[in-house]
Amino acid sequence: MADPIEFYFDLASPYAYLASTQIEKIAEKHGRAVAWRPMMLGAVFKVAGTAPLTDVPLKSDYSKHDFDRTARDFGVPFDLPDGFPHNTLAGARAFYWAEQNDPGKAVALAKALFHSYFGERRDISQPDTVIELAKSVGLDGDAVAEGIQQPDIKQKVKDVTDDAIQNRGVFGAPYFFVDGEPFWGCDRLAQVDRWLETGGW
Amino acid sequence: MADPIEFYFDLASPYAYLASTQIEKIAEKHGRAVAWRPMMLGAVFKVAGTAPLTDVPLKSDYSKHDFDRTARDFGVPFDLPDGFPHNTLAGARAFYWAEQNDPGKAVALAKALFHSYFGERRDISQPDTVIELAKSVGLDGDAVAEGIQQPDIKQKVKDVTDDAIQNRGVFGAPYFFVDGEPFWGCDRLAQVDRWLETGGW
Repeated sequence: MADPIEFYFDLASPYAYLASTQIEKIAEKHGRAVAWRPMMLGAVFKVAGTAPLTDVPLKSDYSKHDFDRTARDFGVPFDLPDGFPHNTLAGARAFYWAEQNDPGKAVALAKALFHSYFGERRDISQPDTVIELAKSVGLDGDAVAEGIQQPDIKQKVKDVTDDAIQNRGVFGAPYFFVDGEPFWGCDRLAQVDRWLETGGW
Repeated sequence: MADPIEFYFDLASPYAYLASTQIEKIAEKHGRAVAWRPMMLGAVFKVAGTAPLTDVPLKSDYSKHDFDRTARDFGVPFDLPDGFPHNTLAGARAFYWAEQNDPGKAVALAKALFHSYFGERRDISQPDTVIELAKSVGLDGDAVAEGIQQPDIKQKVKDVTDDAIQNRGVFGAPYFFVDGEPFWGCDRLAQVDRWLETGGW
């Protein structure tokens, strides 16, 4: 099987959530897997000198309008949570703990976190909520609660984020790599699809 | 005929140039005209607190890669001029002078300016270059040279830009309105096309 599509995201990125509802269909069409890579977008913004779209004057209203329009287009729920954007460190740590300890359930957890946040407006910054969602996809809640406190798991989130910024040039989310070719943004899904179809142009 | 698609742009915006090579085909398909609206993106960036993509750390290299990739995808020439981005005030003034005095040639002038800048790497900030390009599309060079000095033409560029920012919420380029619905970015052309097709969703 060819290399997986690498999918870098923050669990609090609206466009990453929207893209997450589409990328697996695209990957399957071309016989690819998806490597889900949650990271901390706050660290990315610090290096890039950027900010959440909803904090940029003029862009804020449009971006909310565009999130809704794209969600309707994709036929998926979308409702921006109060207090957006929340810190998703506990969720990212739980993902990597699951990837190491019960790998078949890590992606299901990421999807549950995305859906809970953007579909049900739940505050996924709370470890209790993350643990509840972990249990809902069949993970061991007590083990997850301990796992997200492990130094190696904390370090893993930091390492993935640092590597994304320093070695891969990631400056936003979603950010995809298809055989090394970078694509930034939910709006590049059509290009990702055609790149996989054609091998590039 | 239904309302034209409004197309706000700066003549030095790479994504606006790329979109300019596609928007008329989309408009014609749906029996629409395009109202070309050059503006000064520098004024927009000041209000939005943003900057040219090529000036943002990390985004710079990717954006250049993405300009090229999109141009290859569209089959149009693209070569970022040295000293990018240049001031396009003279070009915008010449456009509005033509729109008022020889309206059939205004869009041809905008296309000539875009092509000269991004296809041939010419410095279109120079009034002499603008006048030469104006002559190449059949405009009266001496009249354009005088026209771009007229106070009402200078004011027109300022008014379009201020109105775009203050009343239309424009914060980047290209920026389209389809029956009042806003679309930001060259990457929204597919949505513009489907919005025209379906009447919106």
